[in-house]
This record gives sequence, C-alpha cells and structure tokens, in this order.
Amino acid sequence: MPISYCRHKQTDSQWGKTVSSNEQDKLLFTPGPLTTSRSVKEAMLHDVGSRDSVFIEKVRSVRTDLLRLAGVSQESGYESILLQGAGTYGLEAVVSCAIPKTGHLLLVINGAYGHRLKKIADIHQIRTTGLVYQENETPQAEDVKSVLDKDGSITHVSIVHCETTTGMFNDIEAVGRVVAGFQKEYIVDAMSSFGAVPIDFAACHIDYLVSSSNKCIEGVPGFSFIIARRSCLLKTKGQSRTLSLDIFDQWEGLEQNGQFRFTPPTHTISAFHQAVAELLEEGGVTGRARRYKENYALLVQGMRTLGFREYLEAPKQGYIISSFLYPADPKFDFDDFYNRLNGQGFVIYPGKLSHADCFRIGNIGKIYPQDIGNLLKAIESVIEKMNITL
Amino acid sequence: MPISYCRHKQTDSQWGKTVSSNEQDKLLFTPGPLTTSRSVKEAMLHDVGSRDSVFIEKVRSVRTDLLRLAGVSQESGYESILLQGAGTYGLEAVVSCAIPKTGHLLLVINGAYGHRLKKIADIHQIRTTGLVYQENETPQAEDVKSVLDKDGSITHVSIVHCETTTGMFNDIEAVGRVVAGFQKEYIVDAMSSFGAVPIDFAACHIDYLVSSSNKCIEGVPGFSFIIARRSCLLKTKGQSRTLSLDIFDQWEGLEQNGQFRFTPPTHTISAFHQAVAELLEEGGVTGRARRYKENYALLVQGMRTLGFREYLEAPKQGYIISSFLYPADPKFDFDDFYNRLNGQGFVIYPGKLSHADCFRIGNIGKIYPQDIGNLLKAIESVIEKMNITL
Repeated sequence: MPISYCRHKQTDSQWGKTVSSNEQDKLLFTPGPLTTSRSVKEAMLHDVGSRDSVFIEKVRSVRTDLLRLAGVSQESGYESILLQGAGTYGLEAVVSCAIPKTGHLLLVINGAYGHRLKKIADIHQIRTTGLVYQENETPQAEDVKSVLDKDGSITHVSIVHCETTTGMFNDIEAVGRVVAGFQKEYIVDAMSSFGAVPIDFAACHIDYLVSSSNKCIEGVPGFSFIIARRSCLLKTKGQSRTLSLDIFDQWEGLEQNGQFRFTPPTHTISAFHQAVAELLEEGGVTGRARRYKENYALLVQGMRTLGFREYLEAPKQGYIISSFLYPADPKFDFDDFYNRLNGQGFVIYPGKLSHADCFRIGNIGKIYPQDIGNLLKAIESVIEKMNITL
Repeated sequence: MPISYCRHKQTDSQWGKTVSSNEQDKLLFTPGPLTTSRSVKEAMLHDVGSRDSVFIEKVRSVRTDLLRLAGVSQESGYESILLQGAGTYGLEAVVSCAIPKTGHLLLVINGAYGHRLKKIADIHQIRTTGLVYQENETPQAEDVKSVLDKDGSITHVSIVHCETTTGMFNDIEAVGRVVAGFQKEYIVDAMSSFGAVPIDFAACHIDYLVSSSNKCIEGVPGFSFIIARRSCLLKTKGQSRTLSLDIFDQWEGLEQNGQFRFTPPTHTISAFHQAVAELLEEGGVTGRARRYKENYALLVQGMRTLGFREYLEAPKQGYIISSFLYPADPKFDFDDFYNRLNGQGFVIYPGKLSHADCFRIGNIGKIYPQDIGNLLKAIESVIEKMNITL
C-alpha cells in the first residue's frame, strides 16, 4: 500500500487543521522542490543546536549514507561534503575550487544546465571549451575524445547526468572512460538523478559529483552535497575563489569536529536524515528507480493515449522528468492549462527549451503510480474543457 | 516500506510522541540556531512549488515586512533580497558584489566577525585597511574619521553591529555619520541584532545591512537577507565575483517575477513568513527588544548573584548574548559544565575570545524570563555538584 494512502486518514481527527491542510497540499510534478513524505517534514519539528552531539551524529550518518548510496566509501577513497545553499552553489563550489587558475574546463553541453556550468566557469575567469549539442542530441564519447586529443591543455571535463531541460540521460560512463583515459578530472552534475538512477562511480571514473537535498533523495531544499575523490579534493586546499563555497575547508571542518564552518540548516538536515532512511527502506537507488520508472511508464503511456507527444525520442528519455510538446491546436494556452491543473491540485512545470514549445512533468518525489493516474485524469478533463484537439 | 511509518503514526494516537519530544527539545541559549515557536516549525509541514503563486506571495510579503522592520521601504529607496545559504553567504555576497576591483574597504574590527569580513575581502583580493580594536574595546567614530581623513582611496566601510564574539553593541550610528560625511558606502553586519535592536537606517546612513533567518526574527536557518539602498545596489550590476552570490541578479529575479534564480529553501521561507508574523504580533522590534532585555537583565543579575563575572563592562554589553569569564577555581572544566547543563536540557555556547576564557549565554529565540530562571537554577545546581567556588 503506497504511503500516499496512509498519509493520514487515521490521524486526521487528532491532527485537525494541520493534517487536513497538508492533505490539501498540491502534488508537485516538478524537478524540485518535490512532494516529500509527512515523516520527512515532521523531522523539522525540532530545534537542535548546530554543535550538539545529536545533530553532529545526524550529519555524520548522512555523510556516510551518501557515500553508501554512491557505492563508494572513505576506505575506497571518497568523501562527502554538505554545503549550505541551492544545488547551483554546490556546482559553483566544485568548479571554483577544483579548477586552478591554469586550468581549462571542457564543458559537454546539451541543455540549460550545461550552459549554467559554463556561466559559472566564466564568472570565475576559468578557461573553457564547449562541446555543445542540440537539446535533443546525445553527447558522444568520441567527440569528447576528439577534443581532448586536439587540446592537451584541458584539465577538467564536466557533464550533466540527467539534463533537466529535456529529461535526457547522458551517458556519463562512456564519456567518463574517455576522460579517465586522458587522466583529466571529471565533474558530474547529478542534481536530478542521484539517488534514483544507478551510478557506478568506478566505471564512470567520477571525481566530483554534485546533487542536492530536494531531488531524488526526497528531502526538502536547503543544501547541496558533493561526493569527491579524496585525492582530487586534497589538491583544492587553498584554491577556493570564495570563502562560503570552499569545499576543502568545509570538508575539513566536517571531518575535524563534525561541525559546519557556518550555521547549517539544522531542520533541513534533520529532514534529509529521515529522507535517507526512507530511501534505504525503499530499497535504495534500485528501489526508488523502480517506482520512478513505473511513474514514468504510466505517464508516457497515458499522455500518448491522450494524444500528447514527447519532445525526445523514447530511447533518449530518462525516467526523472519528461518534456511534452505543446499540442498543435492554436487554442492551447500553456498558462491556462497550467492554472487549471494547479486549481485541481496538480503542479506541473514549464519548459526550458530554446527551440521548441514544451512543458515538463516530473516523476520524482513522494509520487506514486496512483498519483500519476489522477494527474492524467485531470489533464484529460482540462484538455476537454479547453476544447483542445490532440 | 511505508507500513512502518503508518504503524508509527497509528500507535501515536494523540500525535503524542512528536509533540512531547518537541516539548523535550533542549532550550538553546546560543547565537543560533535558536529555539523557535511550534507554529514557526509547523509552517514547514507543507510542500509548495517554488514557482507557485502561494509561495511567491509569501516571498513578496516577507521582503516587504523586512523593509518595514527596518523602518524603510521601496518608496524611501531601499530593497530587500533573500539569499540561500548561511548568514556568512550574505556578507560575502555584499562584499564581493558591492566593492569594485578598484575599491578599498576599511574594516572596523573588534571581534571574530569583524575578522571574518576581512577574510572575505581578502579571498576576493579586495584592498583592505583594518581598524582593529581589542575585543573589549568599543570602536570610536573619531578613529574612523582619522583613517578616512588620511586615505582618500577608501570606498567602503564595514562594521559589525552586535559583535557576537563578546555580545558588544557597536555604535553604528556614530560611525555611520562619519562614513556618510565622507560619502563612502557603509556595510553593517547586523546578523545577531536585526529584528530585536532598533536600527535607524537614516540616522545610521546604512547602505547594506545583512542578517539571517535564524537570529532575532526567530526563524529557522537556511538563508540570509540583505537590505540595500537601491542606488548602491543598482551599481553592482555585472560586478559580482560569483554566480550564486550575485545580489543584483538575485534582486532582479525577485523583482521581475517574484521567483528565485535557483531553488529556494521553500520550507525555511514558510517558517520565516510565520516568524515575521509572530514578531509583528509581539510588537515588532520594540516588543521583541523588551523581552530580550528582560531575559538579559535576569540572566546577568542571576549570574552575578551566583558569583560569575561578565567579560565586558556592563555599559558595553548588549542584550543579545553575554560572555561570562570562567570561574577562577581550577576545578572548573567548561566541557563538564556544558555537558551537565546539556543533560538538564539547557544548551549554552562556548567562548570565541582570543585573549580570555569565557563561555556565552544567549538571550534570544523563543526564550522567556521563566526559561532564564530555570537555566540559572540548573547552573546553580551544576556548580554545586562540580564543587566550584565562585
């Protein structure tokens, strides 16, 4: 029985207002913030001192579990770092700490998040080369090889795992093999995939992976986290271009006494601690992948049945978030469509494509197949009311 | 997996466990994270989309209320900006955006937080001059005048309002008048004072004020906020040294569509929205100041009665947090003292002074005179058990 069922019929009467208003929370079919479990949010009902042993233990446990979810460990040479702020802060931290002044970053780009990494590198005056694809194209390892063959000055390569712009899964393993062959450092933006898409760190040769608290681990937003190869991390000492985003100092602080250098989001971390426990209980990455895949399969099948078409060809599409093309019918108005669904309690997401009109629907968060079914019913009725021909 | 969570809920028929364990939360006599109200934490029991109109309205309302609490408004030429991350992020954002490459920052320093501002300026290779005092000394406006008289290249002056290292209130108004007389920009770190210590923006000539969500407004940690004079803020366009901490871009985004550039800590902001409402209900800055002053007066009186001595002379001591000297008795061991109090549910704070052994006790957060009374009783019993002569 999915958790959305027990989300609270029984406690309703005791919990009164708060529960019933929680029940009215809209379901979020977005790339985050997501719908999270009641118990994850309840973990935030406590104030704890940031230097208190109870909190320090939670941080330690979360950091260890992140490595475990990644299939690595301190013993195998990896470290995990929690960093206050949005996911982008974690990416900026890695780019601005890992790449020295003499560095040169090759950016593999096929969407807005790839471009964002370039923006970060640019602001820190880091030399870059862009290997830029169309948003519906899959980056090819042989292209990366060919750039690295030609330009020996490149020191780092970055790629986005699940490009949230489209929902495409990029082949981080094929690219990683090439990067490792050239002995370059490899930065993977796994913001919207980590925790629900299996990633083999060894096979992918990942040096830095960045994700955040409010994605597939199903915590609430407030911090990003980095999983780093220790031998790379140690080289960043004194190399940070900022105080706040210094991953070495942050890591050293966490290692030395388990504390953050600057006030951590204690409540958010307590929620994440609970979220990680629930992820492990669901069967870890494999278990969560199973549910998201089921959500995705139902969604795509249902949308096709309604007459919608995906932006990406099916084999390129990941199961995290999907882009659907606007119907050709000129009566389709996205804002109207969005607001009507919103009014029924379903929050979908606008598109972010540069060359096509799309909207997006996420399959992640505390969302179950039944919720997808309800969303599809709502879409059907909205389309009918809007008198859209599909 | 969900079954166990349901079971937990069912046996917990009155919602008892969570409530009672919250009641058992230790009281935090620290500079933050603080003890917050139940209703502030309950505001986090909802997942909202970061682009949802309900959330956008909360952000708008909070931004307006912050200006109101500061006694300024958009009409009078000020803007408020929320920025993901710890308070230090807000300080780094202002320093690294407001001060151009050709800038020169005069830092008024009498504690660790003054030094931290220097560390921020240094990492961004900003030219600095330090006007450094002992931790028990009050910065003098005439000293600032004398430095500005001698060095015309200085463009910005920074100061900490309540230096949390000691708890001293610095005279930001006297210094501000001098800074304005020289037409320099004035940056005030009001991290632990804003919301509970009246600040007259006009009289102080403040250009940038920085504080955070988990201080006197009694929200939970997760973001900082900046109140900026618009004419100064507009000059920072394109001047940021980072992507994440770009205050102009962040402000522009919030103004244009009410949204954050990068995922905001939605739950933390909902909690802050509730915290601001409760602050206004308590009578705003004046009302909150009244309670904190009462806490402080009781604390100091009680500690003196027990035989403790403050680090600062009374007239220099603010009512936010107080430093107490270790007792002379060699049997006094701070860790033991701290742990015993902690065991009784009272969390105090270690010292941060460079030249004296102190511990700190904060008067802020959802802490009432009765709590101070209980803390004093606990301290008395702990001192007795430790057999300390005062």
